[in-house]
Amino acid sequence: MDQSRLTKLRSFMEEQQVEAILVTLPMHVYYLTGFYTDPHERFMGLVIPAEGEPVLIVPALDRNAAEAASSVQKIMTHTDTDNPYLILKQALPQNMKSLAVEKSHLTVSTYEAMVKELDVPTYVDVEEPLRQMRLVKSVDEVARIKRACETIEEVLRQCLPKVKVGVTEAEIVAELEFLMKKLGSQGPSFSTMVLSGPNSALPHGKPGSRKIAGGEFLLFDMGVLQDGYISDITRTFAIGEINDKQKDVYETVLAANLAAIEATRPGVVLADLDQVARQVIANKGYGEYFSHRLGHGMGMDVHEYPSVHGANQDKLVSGMVFTIEPGIYLPEVGGVRIEDDVLVTDTGVEILTSYPKELQIIGV
Amino acid sequence: MDQSRLTKLRSFMEEQQVEAILVTLPMHVYYLTGFYTDPHERFMGLVIPAEGEPVLIVPALDRNAAEAASSVQKIMTHTDTDNPYLILKQALPQNMKSLAVEKSHLTVSTYEAMVKELDVPTYVDVEEPLRQMRLVKSVDEVARIKRACETIEEVLRQCLPKVKVGVTEAEIVAELEFLMKKLGSQGPSFSTMVLSGPNSALPHGKPGSRKIAGGEFLLFDMGVLQDGYISDITRTFAIGEINDKQKDVYETVLAANLAAIEATRPGVVLADLDQVARQVIANKGYGEYFSHRLGHGMGMDVHEYPSVHGANQDKLVSGMVFTIEPGIYLPEVGGVRIEDDVLVTDTGVEILTSYPKELQIIGV
Repeated sequence: MDQSRLTKLRSFMEEQQVEAILVTLPMHVYYLTGFYTDPHERFMGLVIPAEGEPVLIVPALDRNAAEAASSVQKIMTHTDTDNPYLILKQALPQNMKSLAVEKSHLTVSTYEAMVKELDVPTYVDVEEPLRQMRLVKSVDEVARIKRACETIEEVLRQCLPKVKVGVTEAEIVAELEFLMKKLGSQGPSFSTMVLSGPNSALPHGKPGSRKIAGGEFLLFDMGVLQDGYISDITRTFAIGEINDKQKDVYETVLAANLAAIEATRPGVVLADLDQVARQVIANKGYGEYFSHRLGHGMGMDVHEYPSVHGANQDKLVSGMVFTIEPGIYLPEVGGVRIEDDVLVTDTGVEILTSYPKELQIIGV
Repeated sequence: MDQSRLTKLRSFMEEQQVEAILVTLPMHVYYLTGFYTDPHERFMGLVIPAEGEPVLIVPALDRNAAEAASSVQKIMTHTDTDNPYLILKQALPQNMKSLAVEKSHLTVSTYEAMVKELDVPTYVDVEEPLRQMRLVKSVDEVARIKRACETIEEVLRQCLPKVKVGVTEAEIVAELEFLMKKLGSQGPSFSTMVLSGPNSALPHGKPGSRKIAGGEFLLFDMGVLQDGYISDITRTFAIGEINDKQKDVYETVLAANLAAIEATRPGVVLADLDQVARQVIANKGYGEYFSHRLGHGMGMDVHEYPSVHGANQDKLVSGMVFTIEPGIYLPEVGGVRIEDDVLVTDTGVEILTSYPKELQIIGV
């Protein structure tokens, strides 16, 4: 198990005076052991005692996969006819006073079934230290996010020649998701958005049977899941010639995107970063049409801490990865959003997405 | 709201002496109201009081969609700055003694936040009546499952010509999922599995960049979600010629699959059905390599009640739909699983999947 993560969890255990942590969210088991599985309704748990070796409990049918992938050596299994909480009890220290569990992941029925078998008087929530740990990405995590970015950008590159006036949004989505898998990712990291014309003015619009037409915007918001980490990029293109108003909207969003990236460095308050982009847009008179936060943390999940919005007084720290995605949505004209994934470095920022952002005319 | 389902829930309330039921699983809200949404981290709940009209509580941004789709007329909403449990409190009867909730869906942290706001001394679990209701499928539900089966079988048919030695597992998955959408489903009902050679011996293996090679098994386990219901089928093929040992494994699994289907009828104990298949495999000396249960209930979900395993003493009843999926996984030789979806009828069984099961050589 990753030693720096183990050390942080052990500090938490000491502070909270708990004798062990039980991690059950599959993504967190992966984060701590390198082994990922979705056990569905079966029980899976990683026991990290304050003293002694961690133990990974998996369904019997996952034993080989867990042995091959997990950095935790001690693996216990249960079959479909076992009571998994009795096996959990064996994996926990004796005479425990307090166990930390994932209260945002455990269901009430799992919790009650577990509590019934264990003689543990107190349960505390382990969400906070896990959230804090995930906030600062390791070199390996950044490398995985970069690969997910490279894949989605190659997907976009290979798809663009197929974008023509008359093709539907849904057909482009099918092509994009085909390329995502073909190019080696596990697939989309969230519902792929391809929105044309007036649909591009809906920040959460759904692609449908609308055909791409000239003189409109075409907005792509998409990402892939690859090796446990995700990418999330938005680019907006012009289909054929667009008018001056549309060009002004595009250039304003681009200026806001660049200004926010320029302002990203350790110590900056998240609300202030949001404000940097918002001010560029407001200065051009489009303030009311930028109707969402500037961005969100990302990594294993598409939406992680921190949320980059006007009320978040937390400060940027080196190792955070988040999106910068200003947008302007004009009901008549259409919408433009330009989204990059960025890493806060010791001295400033590294942009993880590299697809060009100058206004590009396609589809004709 | 569906009257027969409402009547069953009201009987449960009378028996359990609870004054109201709170349904929170999006699929169950859909099952009872016809309205489906994934509210993500926001609260959504259907309140069914023992007396009076049901109330649906949804996030404000879902109001229009809920009004359009829900058979429950009374709708309350909450915004992101509201405490949704205070709104829930308004929707519940006054001075309640007992509330039934979905303990298998509520997380411990949601439950703790809710309990803090409500003055309800007792919480009971509403899982059992909902499970019982879902266990027996209506004619409409069976029709939807059949359509989902037809779609996944057509996907398999159209994909097979593209399976060739040298193509990777991931490329085949991409093609399959492209076809799923193209043929009208919402997409895969679970992570599509295409596993070749030694990977086929991992019951929960992940498709990757491994290339299909001759003399190996190629295992497909997949399904689609279509109109709210799912399919789930496994077929295993030979890539070119395979050896006698491999053929023996295949024929043993097929015999186990057929024996279990043959034994399916109302009144049979689930554990005994599991045993029928297990015995066929044990008789050929492969007992220890069939490491999972025989199957699982399915419908709106990929894994529903009942679980078809050796400790389940429940009996089959007419209207149940579940999978029959014996398998043998030999680390050196590879794995074979053959899975059908079946419906228990008044007199026996109807097989909902129809793709042929005789050993088929492909890819060369």
